[in-house]
Amino acid sequence: MVDTAQRPTPRSPKPNTTDAAASKSGSSGAAALDPSVNTGPIKVAGDPTAPHVNVESLSRALLGTWADVRLAARELTARPDMQRIEGLSMEDHRARVFEQLKVLAANGHVHRAFPTYLGGHDDHGGNIAGFEELVIADPSMQIKGGVQWGLFGAAVLHLGTKKHHDAYLPDIMSLAVPGAFAMTEIGHGSDVASIGTTATYDVETEEFVVHTPFRAAWKEYLGNAARDGIAAVVFAQLITQGVNHGVHAFYVQLRDATGAFLPGIGGEDDGLKGGLNGIDNGRLHFDNVRIPRENLLNRYGDVAEDGTYSSPIASPGRRFFTMLGTLVQGRVSLDGAAVAASALALTIAITYGGQRRQFTAGSDTDEEVILDYQRHQRRLIPRLATTYAANFAHDEFLVKFDAVFSGKADTDADRQDLETLAAALKPLSTWHALDTLQEAREACGGAGFIAENRFVGLRADLDVYATFEGDNNVLLQLVAKRLLTDYSKQFAKADPGALARYVFKQATDRAYNGSGLHRLTQNVADLGSTARSIGALRDITVQRELLTGRVEGMIAAAATVLRPASKLPKKQAAALFNSQQNQLIEAARAHGELLQWEAFSRAVDATTDAGTAQVLTWLRDLFGLGLIEKNLAWYLINGRLSAQRAQAITSYIDRLIARLRPHAQDLVDSFGYSQAHLRAPIASGIEAERQAEARDYYANLRASGEAPVDEKSHHKKK
Amino acid sequence: MVDTAQRPTPRSPKPNTTDAAASKSGSSGAAALDPSVNTGPIKVAGDPTAPHVNVESLSRALLGTWADVRLAARELTARPDMQRIEGLSMEDHRARVFEQLKVLAANGHVHRAFPTYLGGHDDHGGNIAGFEELVIADPSMQIKGGVQWGLFGAAVLHLGTKKHHDAYLPDIMSLAVPGAFAMTEIGHGSDVASIGTTATYDVETEEFVVHTPFRAAWKEYLGNAARDGIAAVVFAQLITQGVNHGVHAFYVQLRDATGAFLPGIGGEDDGLKGGLNGIDNGRLHFDNVRIPRENLLNRYGDVAEDGTYSSPIASPGRRFFTMLGTLVQGRVSLDGAAVAASALALTIAITYGGQRRQFTAGSDTDEEVILDYQRHQRRLIPRLATTYAANFAHDEFLVKFDAVFSGKADTDADRQDLETLAAALKPLSTWHALDTLQEAREACGGAGFIAENRFVGLRADLDVYATFEGDNNVLLQLVAKRLLTDYSKQFAKADPGALARYVFKQATDRAYNGSGLHRLTQNVADLGSTARSIGALRDITVQRELLTGRVEGMIAAAATVLRPASKLPKKQAAALFNSQQNQLIEAARAHGELLQWEAFSRAVDATTDAGTAQVLTWLRDLFGLGLIEKNLAWYLINGRLSAQRAQAITSYIDRLIARLRPHAQDLVDSFGYSQAHLRAPIASGIEAERQAEARDYYANLRASGEAPVDEKSHHKKK
Repeated sequence: MVDTAQRPTPRSPKPNTTDAAASKSGSSGAAALDPSVNTGPIKVAGDPTAPHVNVESLSRALLGTWADVRLAARELTARPDMQRIEGLSMEDHRARVFEQLKVLAANGHVHRAFPTYLGGHDDHGGNIAGFEELVIADPSMQIKGGVQWGLFGAAVLHLGTKKHHDAYLPDIMSLAVPGAFAMTEIGHGSDVASIGTTATYDVETEEFVVHTPFRAAWKEYLGNAARDGIAAVVFAQLITQGVNHGVHAFYVQLRDATGAFLPGIGGEDDGLKGGLNGIDNGRLHFDNVRIPRENLLNRYGDVAEDGTYSSPIASPGRRFFTMLGTLVQGRVSLDGAAVAASALALTIAITYGGQRRQFTAGSDTDEEVILDYQRHQRRLIPRLATTYAANFAHDEFLVKFDAVFSGKADTDADRQDLETLAAALKPLSTWHALDTLQEAREACGGAGFIAENRFVGLRADLDVYATFEGDNNVLLQLVAKRLLTDYSKQFAKADPGALARYVFKQATDRAYNGSGLHRLTQNVADLGSTARSIGALRDITVQRELLTGRVEGMIAAAATVLRPASKLPKKQAAALFNSQQNQLIEAARAHGELLQWEAFSRAVDATTDAGTAQVLTWLRDLFGLGLIEKNLAWYLINGRLSAQRAQAITSYIDRLIARLRPHAQDLVDSFGYSQAHLRAPIASGIEAERQAEARDYYANLRASGEAPVDEKSHHKKK
Repeated sequence: MVDTAQRPTPRSPKPNTTDAAASKSGSSGAAALDPSVNTGPIKVAGDPTAPHVNVESLSRALLGTWADVRLAARELTARPDMQRIEGLSMEDHRARVFEQLKVLAANGHVHRAFPTYLGGHDDHGGNIAGFEELVIADPSMQIKGGVQWGLFGAAVLHLGTKKHHDAYLPDIMSLAVPGAFAMTEIGHGSDVASIGTTATYDVETEEFVVHTPFRAAWKEYLGNAARDGIAAVVFAQLITQGVNHGVHAFYVQLRDATGAFLPGIGGEDDGLKGGLNGIDNGRLHFDNVRIPRENLLNRYGDVAEDGTYSSPIASPGRRFFTMLGTLVQGRVSLDGAAVAASALALTIAITYGGQRRQFTAGSDTDEEVILDYQRHQRRLIPRLATTYAANFAHDEFLVKFDAVFSGKADTDADRQDLETLAAALKPLSTWHALDTLQEAREACGGAGFIAENRFVGLRADLDVYATFEGDNNVLLQLVAKRLLTDYSKQFAKADPGALARYVFKQATDRAYNGSGLHRLTQNVADLGSTARSIGALRDITVQRELLTGRVEGMIAAAATVLRPASKLPKKQAAALFNSQQNQLIEAARAHGELLQWEAFSRAVDATTDAGTAQVLTWLRDLFGLGLIEKNLAWYLINGRLSAQRAQAITSYIDRLIARLRPHAQDLVDSFGYSQAHLRAPIASGIEAERQAEARDYYANLRASGEAPVDEKSHHKKK
């Protein structure tokens, strides 16, 4: 038997194990495949020419557009001094992370997005790619860096003008001035437009008076606020000449050289959180704090000395969304970080699952490798498929982000598409990361609960990714509204009958733009016919039609119900919309999943190595059919699938998972994390070593002739 | 408007708000219901005689059979000195928990199950009820207490004989001897029968030699092992006269008076875990450690001075399961603790959701209470229904446990039923708790992530409940095997045709016994007929038939596939079984859910207050129909529901949730937790106070005439 202990680290050279594999796996199908020999050309039942994954080229594909930046970042995240130490006190953890931020500032890792003339590279996509990777070292370091350079610094960059860049960015980049991003208030998280803090222009002194009018308007959950923040970008209602011009951003000094709050400024420490305790989150409040007029970050709105307000964007609504839109990179980077954490978790759990043995189901002496159990495969391999989908979708998302922020493709429509893409993908990937970290933790049993094996710490840290930078449910509702708007544009003058009869047109290219509905070339109701064989499920067109049809069908159904809303009083219209809220959010989720599936499919198309392409095709099919299986009732109720074909989906998924099982280790190895990144003893090969030692012990004992007789066989002998 | 700030704590007297409620809620259905007035007789759309929950009597019903014990325990868990302090270092937390255990020992809280002659009460059910409540104060205290008295002490009690009771129990009860329960090994968690530690009888010295033969046989994850344990019950393969008699338990002294390990004994600290860091989990290993022959806990197996083995149970297999079966109370108590944590989480999240406001969907000034959003309701109210179901099921489970352990109903069949019940319910409730804690945390946004609001700490602690005391997936597989066995007994001599034609007989009374299949009086396929109106879904018989039919249908389908297994070689038979593993585990889950539904239905039947009974009926229907909705595809594929009725289920669920919304606060208040238990600032009424202050501020500003004009209206005026 070829033992996995021979390859204790996932990246080590792999022995060719063809013979052992063929002799073991040919006998009784997937359930009997030997998992310890999952890298050679394994015979899969019924397929004597099973493919082989080229880990090196797949690794390169997963790294995506900014592969070199990621590889450089991974050198950084492999450094012990940049990594989390489990069990530090909150104070020690905060201090350590602050020191790590100094390293990030010193080596320029976090400066790529800043202007070239200030030492940056005007490289927005690369900046995010490098930033995302930091999650592997310590999510606290990542997010505290995100607060400093991605929120505080980016607000000065995107909402300020050159005078602000020159005055503030150098010290922000160098971390000489750590700063907070003071947007959220205790009373208003998702609804930023309703924040209570005011900045009232005083024409006499040419100052803004920043003020917190009541307790609910305290700024809340701000990184850098409790300890390190010397300044902040404060969001407040800009009031001048008796008019409230809505939310604007102001640069406000918080603390003096001794670290004490300046007069009129107060705050509290948020204290212990569920995770990310290397970040000093806190609250801030302002009692008529006066700041110079010039401290208004005035790219999208300015106040002249005499108090006259002006803005390049006439509509207050559009202005607000444009200002907030410049901060989309938070969502981009959380999407990427969530994918990275999911990939890491699956690398650990699948490596362990391929070595750990428990119960002797099919043998008298050899225990089964737990990844050979169907349930264990069902727990991990579909999540691997989703992680691949999210990975490929994220890279396209990042390319789109880069195009907008570099100015290459920066129309209003581009920005709106980017916003929609962010709102669709960030919820899916962050929830997926939590789900995957938890399933991986449980799949490793008690060992998964020990902090040193990484799952619990990462899960605790990533928990808040689901609600910060946009609450996931609120974001999906934004997507749904966009889908409804796109839909209703098609039918602005159509009567309800025309609406119901409408057959969607295919526009799959729009998926790449990350927004809009996908339309079918045919009436998807035909799919339910028994004429098509089960083989149709493998057809990419069929998968696309089914996935697209569900998004469109759900949006169409909601739109039909909502049609009378425009004629109703506001309260009733809101109640009507509310009656569809859950379905709309589910439709938005389906839209995001479709975007992931499309990205995955393009990645499959771009794969040149035949074996890798075959395995990726199975994995993409598993992802796509998994989505359909999850929503099978919808397809049945709406006549998109016959009962017969619906049932075939589950059995085909079982087959796909069994086919993918021998490639599971290659598929996680392709994420490219070394032992220095995994840092999980259970994924180090130690489990296989222990198993081997135990097996040797029993083999020697049997050979010695001194092994105790089992009571059962003893009875029989007697 | 009646403001929720008037009732800052859930248990305070409630104002009658009929008028305000009626005037607000009568207009536009559920979406417009005013959540701040959710306790008076609110007009629900279409139902002018909406019922009222009697919180006091419902509270009493939820407390269950050992209500007085629970109430006494809640006095204890309300004491600050017994509660967790967030953010303690691992060392400080361990020290604090150990001190709390001394209080539990001193006041006898944890002694109820021990013999009366030693100061206990022989009260097994009450003991567990009181123990479960401790989770509210600190799960570390609960589980460390569970290790000491529920595992270490219970092993001596149930596996030892009077000499052991007299010798060891007094010091165990008083905590003079803290001890570990050394069963699990690094190499074997779920498969206890395969542990590697040996206890070999030496007839010369009349001693057992306890030995760890290899690294994978180190005892692992043992509470009390790293720091406090002076002794342990060690599970090892008993070998005498060259025969291995299987796993037995031995009392082994670990440390001397100075706290140092005795010769031959070694160990390690497990260090930081994902939660439960008040417990000193660790590893132990033994190098030919000699213990007296009498240290074998010899109730189910003994070794005479000359080395002769004897046992009252002839079959080694039955003996093993009998021994392990005495330790079922761990699963019982985790089930109850998980229900308590879910109830606490929902009390906090629903209280906050009824006060927190965000977005002005249906009004120009007043923001909506977030629990009025359909999505928010969908997130919390079905989980409330599940928590009720789990609560009622747990009490029946505890009654069954008490009957077995008190000897009132202690046949082999009773013990097997109890095992099956434990294996079915513990996975469901522990997963539900994790899911609920997470959803509640997200539903409270950033505030949910702050440690002081309880969710994150409880979730971190309860994480491991899913894999200890029996891995949830492994437990469900045990249930599935039992269901298969029961099923095949029916068809021992039937041909496959008879099997397929079989129409199940109803035996709902068996549900109460917590095991066995539920059989229908009619062919459930008829249910799909359109003849039955949508109203049929409210029919308890219909719900029961649908839920029962799915369990039976899934088991029957798997049994048909598995039928050839008995004729196959062992390896192929295992592969065949493996091919059904996922479906079997899902069938076991469905069986557990059915048990919860049956228990909930009995609780509804036992409710005498009409209003409470009505609301509970809706809640039970929501639970039952929610289960059906979750598995709708199965019902459609198998012809149990027509597409039309399947669709009706979702819309009826929407209606039920809207009906339950006004009662949500009453339903969580009925769990009976005071502010001293909740200890969550966001559930204290502080949010409503802040909202009120903000509203007053804006109202006064408008009244003053000095409010800034909104830019949009300013434009219009110009």
